[in-house]
Amino acid sequence: MEATLAITEAVTKKPKPDPNSLQFGKTFTDHMFTMEYKADEGWTNPQIKPYAPIEIDPAAMVFHYSQTVFEGLKAYRTKDGVVRLFRPEENFKRLNRSNKRLSIPPIDEKSAIEHLKQLVALEKDWIPTEEGTSLYIRPFVIATEPSLQVAPAKSYQLFIILSPVGSYYPTGIQPVSIMVEEDTTRAVRGGTGSAKTGGNYSAGYNAQAKATANGHAQVLWLDGMEKKYIEEVGSMNVFFKINGEIVTPELSDSILEGITRKSVIELLKSWKVPVSERRVTMQEVKDAYDNGTLEEAFGSGTAAVISPIGELTWRDTTMTINGGETGDVTTSLYKTITNIQTGKERDPFGWTLKL
Amino acid sequence: MEATLAITEAVTKKPKPDPNSLQFGKTFTDHMFTMEYKADEGWTNPQIKPYAPIEIDPAAMVFHYSQTVFEGLKAYRTKDGVVRLFRPEENFKRLNRSNKRLSIPPIDEKSAIEHLKQLVALEKDWIPTEEGTSLYIRPFVIATEPSLQVAPAKSYQLFIILSPVGSYYPTGIQPVSIMVEEDTTRAVRGGTGSAKTGGNYSAGYNAQAKATANGHAQVLWLDGMEKKYIEEVGSMNVFFKINGEIVTPELSDSILEGITRKSVIELLKSWKVPVSERRVTMQEVKDAYDNGTLEEAFGSGTAAVISPIGELTWRDTTMTINGGETGDVTTSLYKTITNIQTGKERDPFGWTLKL
Repeated sequence: MEATLAITEAVTKKPKPDPNSLQFGKTFTDHMFTMEYKADEGWTNPQIKPYAPIEIDPAAMVFHYSQTVFEGLKAYRTKDGVVRLFRPEENFKRLNRSNKRLSIPPIDEKSAIEHLKQLVALEKDWIPTEEGTSLYIRPFVIATEPSLQVAPAKSYQLFIILSPVGSYYPTGIQPVSIMVEEDTTRAVRGGTGSAKTGGNYSAGYNAQAKATANGHAQVLWLDGMEKKYIEEVGSMNVFFKINGEIVTPELSDSILEGITRKSVIELLKSWKVPVSERRVTMQEVKDAYDNGTLEEAFGSGTAAVISPIGELTWRDTTMTINGGETGDVTTSLYKTITNIQTGKERDPFGWTLKL
Repeated sequence: MEATLAITEAVTKKPKPDPNSLQFGKTFTDHMFTMEYKADEGWTNPQIKPYAPIEIDPAAMVFHYSQTVFEGLKAYRTKDGVVRLFRPEENFKRLNRSNKRLSIPPIDEKSAIEHLKQLVALEKDWIPTEEGTSLYIRPFVIATEPSLQVAPAKSYQLFIILSPVGSYYPTGIQPVSIMVEEDTTRAVRGGTGSAKTGGNYSAGYNAQAKATANGHAQVLWLDGMEKKYIEEVGSMNVFFKINGEIVTPELSDSILEGITRKSVIELLKSWKVPVSERRVTMQEVKDAYDNGTLEEAFGSGTAAVISPIGELTWRDTTMTINGGETGDVTTSLYKTITNIQTGKERDPFGWTLKL
């Protein structure tokens, strides 16, 4: 049985930042949620307490063997004060799938959502209401046992921290330039690619630096075995509109099952737009470009929601997609999803959870 | 220019543990070394101070994107009080190679060794002198900047912590049973496998649990692309004696360049024993077993130094190697390397660094 949530309010509150100059993931709210796992007690001691540095042993296993998982989701607030979470149950389901891959004990998803709701309610005033802004929510688990043995830890800590974030597109949705990465690998069959775990992310920093140096916003990852099949773009899932059909790489253990990806597919199906989850080679995309049937391309993820791809560079070819403009399906998806998230549009799918 | 090392001695010292009941990586000495990196100052503020929990922001990037690297080496002390480090310059060279892969700024290898020597000298009494015991040294770097941006951090901390360790073989060198893992993957071409970074280790916990449940000590990893070529065993490099020749997988970006591996190869060459670094398939090992030319097999690593493989299970076949006994070359390597490390034998290679 789980212990009762203990709440300790911060004595002094931090000033709220200017919503027009927020950088992603740099400002944190007054409180955080924490919960501990001990081998003999399970997950215990749920607390909301002031956001502050933590004390941790330098031998804590997370520092040595990166046994850690995380999630990312957003809360939106309208001017009338209503706060909405977007599909939080999907995030905690995925957190448990990541936990399984990383040998971390599962959490109770229902009570995690209840605790999250209480935390967000307490921090309601931190949620900006300007167009495109939101409160980014970062649940994460770290292995805390002080031990250098290469083995799963016996103790863990789960945190939920909150960060108000500005608009991803302050001047309106903008297509980006993407570079196909062929040298380094994000994930491979049998690896940790479908888990949201730290190691997948720092592994891509070198490739991202190369892309940035060449004037691209992000990289497109190919499969680790043949460097042939498309997997993801940066830290987003990827979609192409080819000859009227939307295609996206089918899920595997090297692709993260994005919640925005899932929402895109469900939305397209509701619109009767043909959508297919299957293996897609880079060559197929190039062929479609060459014969004029590559109509749109975009990434999907929590941060940007939908990110149109205006240019895609593969080896010596730079493909300009839809004249470098955001395509119609891309625009519709962006508008509809963000409108549902922010309550501007009816939510026929039951995706939003009102506080 | 680097700042001077500041030393703060612990006021109270911990009792030294019983050298006969030491568990690996569970007990830490009275002091640790730390050094910080700041974008505008470089590596700075080298300190030896009491071993204690650290204060760190919950948004520190190491918790989210596992931007971290580590090393492992040992100090040995003889009854006459002489302390020896084994090839520390190789560890700090490798740390910098790992840093490069993980987009962490390089450290000054020479001054790191000087600082390590001062730390070990201060903790000299913690080094057990019993047969097979040593002081395990764990340098590691973590990304400390509080930020959720998926990008290299602007601040880091390097630590060196020390842990007295017992004999890996309290009852003499013992062959182990190894299971060939075909479902999950440790590393792949273009990934982080040749870097000593946390994500490579927690990625293997599931496979290790399966091996343990089936009565095996460790797993043998195959390449991530074809599941055909042998890569490593557990967290060690691997060698086979086939028809008089010692073979070990050639280095690639998915194999860790072990310092014990390097020492084994150098030692074999000095003995004029044929040794070859090349790709080795699991089928080749099985064929050698079938035709009676698989003579010995062993792993090499800092913890065990040399770990003989008595049984190797691949799919439905269990191969008993050398009658399940430690082979002659395996024994000679173990004895010679440990004798050089502990000063019992002359060190013609200049591997040991006396304090």
